[in-house]
Amino acid sequence: MALPKGFQFAGICAGIKPSGKKDLALLVSDRPCSAAGVFTTNRVRAAPVQACQSRLLSEEIRGVVINSGNANACTGQQGRDDAETMCSDLARSLGCQSQQILVCSTGVIGRLLPMPVISAGIEKATTHLSASLQALEDAATAILTTDTRTKVSVQTVEIDGRPVHVLGIAKGAAMIGPNMATMLAFVLTDAAASPASLQNLLRAAVDDSFHCISVEGHTSTNDTVLLLANGASGVTIDEHNGPFASALRAVCQELAQAIIEDAEGASHKITIDVTGTRTDEEAKRIAKTVADSALVKTAIYGNDPNWGRICSAAGYAGVDFQEADMSLKVNGTLLYDRGKPTDFDEAAESQRMRDQRETLVELIFTLGEGHCRFWTSDLTREYVHLNADYTT
Amino acid sequence: MALPKGFQFAGICAGIKPSGKKDLALLVSDRPCSAAGVFTTNRVRAAPVQACQSRLLSEEIRGVVINSGNANACTGQQGRDDAETMCSDLARSLGCQSQQILVCSTGVIGRLLPMPVISAGIEKATTHLSASLQALEDAATAILTTDTRTKVSVQTVEIDGRPVHVLGIAKGAAMIGPNMATMLAFVLTDAAASPASLQNLLRAAVDDSFHCISVEGHTSTNDTVLLLANGASGVTIDEHNGPFASALRAVCQELAQAIIEDAEGASHKITIDVTGTRTDEEAKRIAKTVADSALVKTAIYGNDPNWGRICSAAGYAGVDFQEADMSLKVNGTLLYDRGKPTDFDEAAESQRMRDQRETLVELIFTLGEGHCRFWTSDLTREYVHLNADYTT
Repeated sequence: MALPKGFQFAGICAGIKPSGKKDLALLVSDRPCSAAGVFTTNRVRAAPVQACQSRLLSEEIRGVVINSGNANACTGQQGRDDAETMCSDLARSLGCQSQQILVCSTGVIGRLLPMPVISAGIEKATTHLSASLQALEDAATAILTTDTRTKVSVQTVEIDGRPVHVLGIAKGAAMIGPNMATMLAFVLTDAAASPASLQNLLRAAVDDSFHCISVEGHTSTNDTVLLLANGASGVTIDEHNGPFASALRAVCQELAQAIIEDAEGASHKITIDVTGTRTDEEAKRIAKTVADSALVKTAIYGNDPNWGRICSAAGYAGVDFQEADMSLKVNGTLLYDRGKPTDFDEAAESQRMRDQRETLVELIFTLGEGHCRFWTSDLTREYVHLNADYTT
Repeated sequence: MALPKGFQFAGICAGIKPSGKKDLALLVSDRPCSAAGVFTTNRVRAAPVQACQSRLLSEEIRGVVINSGNANACTGQQGRDDAETMCSDLARSLGCQSQQILVCSTGVIGRLLPMPVISAGIEKATTHLSASLQALEDAATAILTTDTRTKVSVQTVEIDGRPVHVLGIAKGAAMIGPNMATMLAFVLTDAAASPASLQNLLRAAVDDSFHCISVEGHTSTNDTVLLLANGASGVTIDEHNGPFASALRAVCQELAQAIIEDAEGASHKITIDVTGTRTDEEAKRIAKTVADSALVKTAIYGNDPNWGRICSAAGYAGVDFQEADMSLKVNGTLLYDRGKPTDFDEAAESQRMRDQRETLVELIFTLGEGHCRFWTSDLTREYVHLNADYTT
């Protein structure tokens, strides 16, 4: 696995999590990076989100400090001050300005950060910085909350005859703790690019990946995706660079799918492919509506090829169509053909759903060339258990 | 219980349901009624919805025929022909035109109606028509699918010194069968009014009642609310009649709450009161977003006063506000005060939620005079069981 040049990683136990698991990560570049970010649209934004937004876009970012175990959300002015302190702590260790550091937090909300523990942890973590795979794995571990495994993706792409690397790590949207958790993703590359180009590239990649997954449709206060480019490969790209855009999209999609694979209590991974709408936007609206339907998600949990729930969810997505414009396949079998159910073998289709962890739902319209691929998970007893009984 | 004058009811076993339960209802006026309706916004509309929409508004409606056990949805041209046949069957028995009859169906979707059984049932039901309470109860029973009890509401209001009656019956949005079920409501009054006035009155009442409930946010292909006014009281009203509007709203709200009380597998009825937004529309958007959040619904099932899930759901409703604009009470206790959690007693609040079937969630904003009251139910293991395991 070839990592982008010029980056170092660390992941340690600072002592924020009562469990004693790793809870503090650093991602550091040996030179200033262009940086861009995509953030939660929730009106309730955590303090570190506000700190990142005040710093981006930037050409001077040196690193990111991330803690798990406490989201620093709904914590008022003290929370904002604490986020700034995390930045200045790392800046001091690296010998740069506080404005060159980004910060993310994830975990329980509504509690103040244990700042002495965190400041000591940041100082300790800087002594562990390394470009090794083990250090990367430590960092990928330290950002996790209720995830069951690390999520790492790497792509290498040749541009102008030279290798450019794109590395991503992420934590999932699984909701299990006493409060909501968060989706975080960090993408590092040794390409050189302007912040504006990075922002456009990242926005497009996120639209095709993290914005195409949904566990239960709840948007966190802390969701953050950051992209840092340090130029160490010697290759300069802009937003029109197709190979780089493809590599970035591939990394983001792999991370997004890993989040769905690791969703709480899920028994099926569900891929929803909508094609033939007037626009991509219409396809995404239909896909997300189907993905967020509790009736669709419980039917798939029950291994029921329930075309009625899927087609009627598509019907209330707010997209104008007639029944005769729509067909539906599940796992490749045509269940609904331009407005009418087909005479399919229910028992055989149910057995196929039972046998496979993945369910492919294809909604095919006759209205145009729009399309979207979306991922979600099913709604299970285990999900309800995890999200209702965490306090007992 | 004083019923509106001039109406008769019937509810019989026609033989549509394999269980042998009542499955065919008639609501008939002895004279032509002004009539209005509010229908599903789903793009996939069942055949009877299309039949009703083609007839309304009208001043000549004589009755409504309703079957349960089969929704006549996704059934193409044959389904549309069958809905028309149901109207002409009842019209023949009553000696009126087919255009004077409305029709509703609820039950499984994607199957053709057993028309010989239904036509014979309509003929038989006309011989049972009666203005008695028992006949009303029979009709209210025959429209049910997975509901556990009938839903009936009556109001009497004095207008111009004379009594005017408003009667409503409904069936719930519970989703349990092999396909989705439907919300149906029928409101009958002996006031006289123009169809246009009725439509405005009904639209306003539905906005404050049926549009303020959500079990899992899934809009059926068959949802229908009808209002028939036959004028038998001798009192004429228009859309500006406050006492009538209040009585109509009260009937619709009582039926809407009865649907939530009877929601599948629910252990809590949840009332969401949003106040202080700029507009009522903003308040409704926030209330519905909180009501549809699986994380909020599982937390309440788990008796957890989880302010974080509620506040963050409000945050992604698409309404512009700052954290400091929002406070939250649950069952009267302040949990979140203008942007920050309070120091409340979690164990005591949890116990209170456990002890009460009803949970009151109040979101209080400082932005204006907008408000909305919304009702939903919690998300339980039993809900998942009912919606996943119906085929096994």
